[in-house]
Amino acid sequence: MPKKPGFDSIRPVYWKNGALYALDQRLLPHRLIYRRLASAAAVAAAIRDMLLRGAPLIGVAAAYGCALAAKGGGPAPSLRRRLREAGRRLLDSRPTAVNLAHAVRRMERKAEELLGPGRKDLFEALVQEAHAVFAEDLDSNRRMAEAGARLLKPGSSLMTHCNAGALATSGIGTALGVVRWAYRLGKIRQAYVCETRPYLQGSRLTLWELMKEGIPATLITDNMAAHIMATERVDAVLVGADRIAANADAANKIGTYGLAISARHHGVPFYVVAPSTTVDFSLPDGARIPIEERSVREVVEVFGRSIAPRGARARHPAFDVTPHRLITAIVTEKGVVKPACGARLRAVVCT
Amino acid sequence: MPKKPGFDSIRPVYWKNGALYALDQRLLPHRLIYRRLASAAAVAAAIRDMLLRGAPLIGVAAAYGCALAAKGGGPAPSLRRRLREAGRRLLDSRPTAVNLAHAVRRMERKAEELLGPGRKDLFEALVQEAHAVFAEDLDSNRRMAEAGARLLKPGSSLMTHCNAGALATSGIGTALGVVRWAYRLGKIRQAYVCETRPYLQGSRLTLWELMKEGIPATLITDNMAAHIMATERVDAVLVGADRIAANADAANKIGTYGLAISARHHGVPFYVVAPSTTVDFSLPDGARIPIEERSVREVVEVFGRSIAPRGARARHPAFDVTPHRLITAIVTEKGVVKPACGARLRAVVCT
Repeated sequence: MPKKPGFDSIRPVYWKNGALYALDQRLLPHRLIYRRLASAAAVAAAIRDMLLRGAPLIGVAAAYGCALAAKGGGPAPSLRRRLREAGRRLLDSRPTAVNLAHAVRRMERKAEELLGPGRKDLFEALVQEAHAVFAEDLDSNRRMAEAGARLLKPGSSLMTHCNAGALATSGIGTALGVVRWAYRLGKIRQAYVCETRPYLQGSRLTLWELMKEGIPATLITDNMAAHIMATERVDAVLVGADRIAANADAANKIGTYGLAISARHHGVPFYVVAPSTTVDFSLPDGARIPIEERSVREVVEVFGRSIAPRGARARHPAFDVTPHRLITAIVTEKGVVKPACGARLRAVVCT
Repeated sequence: MPKKPGFDSIRPVYWKNGALYALDQRLLPHRLIYRRLASAAAVAAAIRDMLLRGAPLIGVAAAYGCALAAKGGGPAPSLRRRLREAGRRLLDSRPTAVNLAHAVRRMERKAEELLGPGRKDLFEALVQEAHAVFAEDLDSNRRMAEAGARLLKPGSSLMTHCNAGALATSGIGTALGVVRWAYRLGKIRQAYVCETRPYLQGSRLTLWELMKEGIPATLITDNMAAHIMATERVDAVLVGADRIAANADAANKIGTYGLAISARHHGVPFYVVAPSTTVDFSLPDGARIPIEERSVREVVEVFGRSIAPRGARARHPAFDVTPHRLITAIVTEKGVVKPACGARLRAVVCT
């Protein structure tokens, strides 16, 4: 498994002795505990239960999940059945991030290619393919970081939502990768971190990452973003994405859309940073992106403590869609999509 | 103390045996406990610590606080000193809501008027004056409710933020008073309640009020508001206010401004419902309204449980300012200010 380039030592997943170890992100920032995931079913459950999250990272984890389905070998029909079953489970674990589907399809293609001639070391070969998925994500993080940092001016005050960091990828992050890189270049004065209810990825994960890195970061509740934009200097908003449609509409963590509306209202550039594996050209626009509706328990309880009356009705869409017109540019590892529109997206990503 | 007209039986404060009893709103919705407040200092502390909150209600409580300063009687110089000290304490308890200052000044004027001829039963007279403040707030709630309900069309789906309900007033509420009244008239299909981080007045208080009333209500996190406006029907947003400047800019609970921007983006009418005592003609615009910055502990902890890394830096502005251009109309007990502008505000409120 390739090493991360410098920066901090955050490793959300690692491979060891034939199993995937994943940092249980639900316990952060207070406890750092790795869980051993030794089967495709365990990986799928970990993704569903948000033990690990972040669109690029669940793609990487799903790749290892597929590899684990081949553990122990066996005749080709049995392997095929196990791989198909694993792929289905993994695809069902979360619906919005398309990186997961990309990874599963890639692993299935690889397996089919190898099963043809009846290779015996399919498991090892699939682990190598998963390592490749990991390495490519890591490399794409670096490229996005460099491209994104060029968009920022020195002394920038940024705002970010959810966690698009090392914890969401195999590298230094997407949006936070840009922040890390730009900080090294002396371009970042500070970052505002939206806490990101209900799951608090901002306060629990992003703030933790930035504090480890020594980047001045200030936590705000999501509903303070507009007030901060109106009363303080905010030079850019940077977020990740879970799926980008062919017209450059982008699905990302719930709250991103409102943030984009506020950014536009205040004339603040709004950047989406995501690898090209996040793009789904099969969907013409963002309205077709499936939005996961998670348990309302995650809304009416905080750390198991009820914050609402018993029997409260609630909603919990886990993502929203930001129309491309509100996006200043999309930063991918293949280049910057600016303006954020379908034609430019295709030109950058499909080359 | 006057009784509330019908509706539910929520009583955030009541006067009994020479003391003010206040429902400890920090414990809602899980525990209903009243605290006895027998001195001006106790009332000021209760306001500061948010045992009770809501701009109109803290005005009412402050009136009783002033009265309590006269308890026990005494010579005029001593009474004057105690009243001045009480007024100062109460004014210092929270800076943004102007109703508090209005109430304190009214009680001081009343005391001065009574102290002149050296009346002995000043305490009782001031309690009567506080009862009058209470009764006027209650009456203004009803007038706002009627006026506001006329703005809504049958079958409306509403959205509200924070708690502008019975718990924030001596009556049926400002924004929620409108919702209650309109619901009786069959005009309300349902209401979306923004949870209102960090203090969760939406999930803890507003949802509780609406559920008691049987009004279909759905809890959302604050960052879901824009997504709901884009994907569901929202016919109007209704909020309260803590201070309204002469040009009709309105300060209200943090998050209101972002909600107003989203409402404008989606073409949803945005109504501010507040009694005329919320208007401060001494301030030309919203930029002059003092915004209380509360402890960041209320942001980094939820019910005493830390949601961020140790040593996290955070912000906690408790209010924000919505420019009058984003407000469709301001509903007061004296009439509807539409368009929301300085000239119209003066015409309605000063008659």
